[in-house]
Amino acid sequence: MPTYQAPVRDMQFLFQDVLELEQFSNLEGFRDATPDVMNAILEEGAKLTQEVLFPLNQVGDQQGCNRRQDGGVETPDGFKDAYDTYCEGGWGGLTADPAYGGQGLPHVLGVAVSEMMSSSNMAFGMYPGLTRGAYAAISLHGTDTQKETYLPKLVSGQWTGTMNLTEPHCGTDLGMLRTKAVPQADGSYKITGTKIFISAGEHDLAENIIHLVLARIEGAPEGTKGISLFIVPKFILNEDGTPGERNGVMCGSLEEKMGIHGNSTCVMNYDDAVGYLIGAEHKGLRAMFTMMNEARLGVGIQGLAQSEIAYQNAAAYAKDRIQGRALTGAQNPDKPADPILVHPDVRRMLMNQRAFNEAARAMLFWTALFGDLSEKATDEKLREKGEDYMGLMTPVLKAYLTDMGFTHCVNAQQVYGGHGYIQEWGMEQYVRDSRIAMIYEGANGIQALDLVGRKLALNGGRAVTTFLAEINQYIDERRDDPEMGTFVEGLETAKSHLEEGTAWLMKNGLEDFNNAGAASTDYLYIFGLVGMAYMWARMAEAAQKKLNNGGASDPFYATKLKTGRYFIERMLPDTAAHLAKLKTGAEPLMAMTADEF
Amino acid sequence: MPTYQAPVRDMQFLFQDVLELEQFSNLEGFRDATPDVMNAILEEGAKLTQEVLFPLNQVGDQQGCNRRQDGGVETPDGFKDAYDTYCEGGWGGLTADPAYGGQGLPHVLGVAVSEMMSSSNMAFGMYPGLTRGAYAAISLHGTDTQKETYLPKLVSGQWTGTMNLTEPHCGTDLGMLRTKAVPQADGSYKITGTKIFISAGEHDLAENIIHLVLARIEGAPEGTKGISLFIVPKFILNEDGTPGERNGVMCGSLEEKMGIHGNSTCVMNYDDAVGYLIGAEHKGLRAMFTMMNEARLGVGIQGLAQSEIAYQNAAAYAKDRIQGRALTGAQNPDKPADPILVHPDVRRMLMNQRAFNEAARAMLFWTALFGDLSEKATDEKLREKGEDYMGLMTPVLKAYLTDMGFTHCVNAQQVYGGHGYIQEWGMEQYVRDSRIAMIYEGANGIQALDLVGRKLALNGGRAVTTFLAEINQYIDERRDDPEMGTFVEGLETAKSHLEEGTAWLMKNGLEDFNNAGAASTDYLYIFGLVGMAYMWARMAEAAQKKLNNGGASDPFYATKLKTGRYFIERMLPDTAAHLAKLKTGAEPLMAMTADEF
Repeated sequence: MPTYQAPVRDMQFLFQDVLELEQFSNLEGFRDATPDVMNAILEEGAKLTQEVLFPLNQVGDQQGCNRRQDGGVETPDGFKDAYDTYCEGGWGGLTADPAYGGQGLPHVLGVAVSEMMSSSNMAFGMYPGLTRGAYAAISLHGTDTQKETYLPKLVSGQWTGTMNLTEPHCGTDLGMLRTKAVPQADGSYKITGTKIFISAGEHDLAENIIHLVLARIEGAPEGTKGISLFIVPKFILNEDGTPGERNGVMCGSLEEKMGIHGNSTCVMNYDDAVGYLIGAEHKGLRAMFTMMNEARLGVGIQGLAQSEIAYQNAAAYAKDRIQGRALTGAQNPDKPADPILVHPDVRRMLMNQRAFNEAARAMLFWTALFGDLSEKATDEKLREKGEDYMGLMTPVLKAYLTDMGFTHCVNAQQVYGGHGYIQEWGMEQYVRDSRIAMIYEGANGIQALDLVGRKLALNGGRAVTTFLAEINQYIDERRDDPEMGTFVEGLETAKSHLEEGTAWLMKNGLEDFNNAGAASTDYLYIFGLVGMAYMWARMAEAAQKKLNNGGASDPFYATKLKTGRYFIERMLPDTAAHLAKLKTGAEPLMAMTADEF
Repeated sequence: MPTYQAPVRDMQFLFQDVLELEQFSNLEGFRDATPDVMNAILEEGAKLTQEVLFPLNQVGDQQGCNRRQDGGVETPDGFKDAYDTYCEGGWGGLTADPAYGGQGLPHVLGVAVSEMMSSSNMAFGMYPGLTRGAYAAISLHGTDTQKETYLPKLVSGQWTGTMNLTEPHCGTDLGMLRTKAVPQADGSYKITGTKIFISAGEHDLAENIIHLVLARIEGAPEGTKGISLFIVPKFILNEDGTPGERNGVMCGSLEEKMGIHGNSTCVMNYDDAVGYLIGAEHKGLRAMFTMMNEARLGVGIQGLAQSEIAYQNAAAYAKDRIQGRALTGAQNPDKPADPILVHPDVRRMLMNQRAFNEAARAMLFWTALFGDLSEKATDEKLREKGEDYMGLMTPVLKAYLTDMGFTHCVNAQQVYGGHGYIQEWGMEQYVRDSRIAMIYEGANGIQALDLVGRKLALNGGRAVTTFLAEINQYIDERRDDPEMGTFVEGLETAKSHLEEGTAWLMKNGLEDFNNAGAASTDYLYIFGLVGMAYMWARMAEAAQKKLNNGGASDPFYATKLKTGRYFIERMLPDTAAHLAKLKTGAEPLMAMTADEF
């Protein structure tokens, strides 16, 4: 019953008119990313996701995965064929290194395609998503041989990847992990232990699965300083690199989850499995964080993606469903009732979703572009800025976009009334699927701690200082532009709340670390809102420019301005409430003893 | 894995120290409700819900209901026995009229028991919940014969009740309903049509089911003015009042829902079913609204109830789960990690839940007491005030408590990290179950419209004026009390936002009804927050009084004050943001044409 239309036009607007990607055409990767190429890929991505992946989304939810007695896992009907189509289209290599069979295109384009995949079928999209994480870890930390052995197969999709961190007694606190690695004479290790919540841990899509596993080498130091990262292939490779003997790693059971039923979430049992060290001994956590950052941005994308498809369907339903009359009198007098879109409160729910989605997309693309620049810019300062922004924005995007993405799926479901609670309309699946994004790859509270405890302080606060300076300059340059009034004023107020919150944290967070913890989530929300206000200002400016230059016949730009104004007037005021809460400090939170809870 | 402990102590505190129910001991119903009786009933309710209903909650979710080929519906294992226990305990008659076998106790006590039932097993609690609605409609609108025929059986629980409003093409807009009623020579009617989303529509718990059905008598006026209410028993009664021949009403199918799987949500097909008019012809909607108000308060209770059990388990988990170290240094140096309760951000999630739950309970009890007073007070002014407050608070409690109750279930789930997403820990069920409460018995947007469009204006705004005057007087009388400083200041600020919002609505809502619609949800949220701030002030005052009078040895009172201060400092600031949004008016919402969505 639900439908999906990839937001190609909005993506093109961001590429061309807001981020103006053509200015980077001298950089590696961007050279080949001409507007024609980008558009063709967006159109092909739309086809793949609308026609191949989306029709399997409800099937996947209702069937789920099935673990056979022999430990093999069957994905839902159609997933294997769809995965083959995905691989044949070369999608796995879109942004990967051409040395390993990739197309080397910019990450910002990869984010756009990821959004489409996560909208159309989040559970499916996780199989290649995890593979991208494994690719990133091996390409940054692997030896040349490891790269040559694994990367081409991960890029082609013949093999998929996983991340194995969590154990029953430890998730966030990996220092407690117990999986052990025993060195063998041939330089390999025997890995033994149990990992839980392993997405795509076992399935029938690919001929091999490359598990990246955190474990402790026998005799290693306690805590996080004794953790190493290992490559553990499902099938041990023959000399010629083809999959050979079955390794000692098995799916012990599938988790019964709230959602993402189409993805196999496995308990993985390692029993003297052959593994190969990747990166240095005892430095596994650092290597794993390479995957985590990639993965965290991917999870932020899921927040937007689910909110986007939920919005599309809720808007269509609100136009279609007739019920009651407009408060101001019948709008549809020849029919028995008006569409529920006439009601301001229904519009409130829809506009909240829409204004969030468009700003979330802009913020993701903008950040991903800095990811590209961090690797490819010729100017060293710009590479540094790219890295700073990626670090600063990753926790914000992961947490804010998934908290809000979930909330907006709930809003979209609400537009359907009782029908939203029923399986057949598809809306309750978006709520259940999007819920996990707030939890995995570091629960959102951990993201907030990463922001205030690490990212703010890094390099003497360079990243946040640069960001605030960029916004201040943006505001100053547009202060006298009447067309930008609403946006500049809104951004300035919100930015002043961010400055005030930052100053409060600098002072009080260092005096008592619990103040930083107590303020962290509200601070992250302010950050998210300011980021969105900045994106809205830039989108409004780009749209206004188009309108002023003969674009008035295209309703796209006027709609963009209306949506942006809605954001500034009806969503941005939340920064003040977050600031008030932040400034109470830790005392109201820490006042109770454990027994009192 | 989850547990449930009925919050008896908190309920007693509200009865005795905050609402001081003994002052009403001269009133009917209250006469028998001595503290001893109340306490005994709370203790028995705790036993029933903890020991009988709660153990069936996960079973009910996982098994769901099963429709047999013959149209009969089997409830999950254990539900029938539990229902028998419920009936044998006389719980169905707690607040019912002694003339029909009830105990005639105050509604405020009934609310407490309903909370326990909805916490321990929401899906189960809906069977008797719907019966109470049918009882209310028949007792207010039925003839003496109808009352004598049906009420004793509904009170004893031998029969259950349902509400049949929604049809596939109409839910909110009942004016469009098509189910028809054809008058018969004997004064009865033949009812034909399809109803959907009928909770407890068919099941194996009781020997008969009394459907209350909205239908249109042949030739009746169009729209809501042509709707009548009918009693349609599953089994037509024999002359002696016992169930006889099967009536032409069948469960066509069960809905596949997101949650409340233990409750049978039916498509009901009426095919020349024998029905009996209740109340006047064409006045069915008014009669149905009697049930709706009862039901809406019940739904508000569900919002609190699910948040309460979710909080209890999240708090226990946060004390038990060790992971990482406190930001201020190890609190638990002899263990490998500290419990996650040491983290301010984990406490933020828990305190949000706790501070909400306790205020929600107070607000429900306080409102239910006014329901009692509206019927039983000897002073006519007090009866009028009781009715005013019930009308005013019903939409607030229904919408605010269910929106927030759901949000807090999500927060509680978040405390569990990945384990919150897995079925076995039980938390994801609370999220799925509580979600429906925002939708049924009038989606929350409809509640907001009821508040601003109807309840505010009724009797020249008498109810809201009385409420604001009560709060102003409360503040004035405590302005110089240093112990009440935080509470009085917080309440005063929030109350000023409510006054400002009310004044804005009076002026702008009448000029353009869309302004009222655009403001409605934010206004309702301000109302909810002010109501809670008032409750917190009263609870704090009662707790402080206890502390000042030798209660310091009991940690209950100090905990109450800490929780209340948290509410004022970290939750109440939201009123300002809601006011800012409210005051933007309808323009930002109505700016887009339908095509632009």
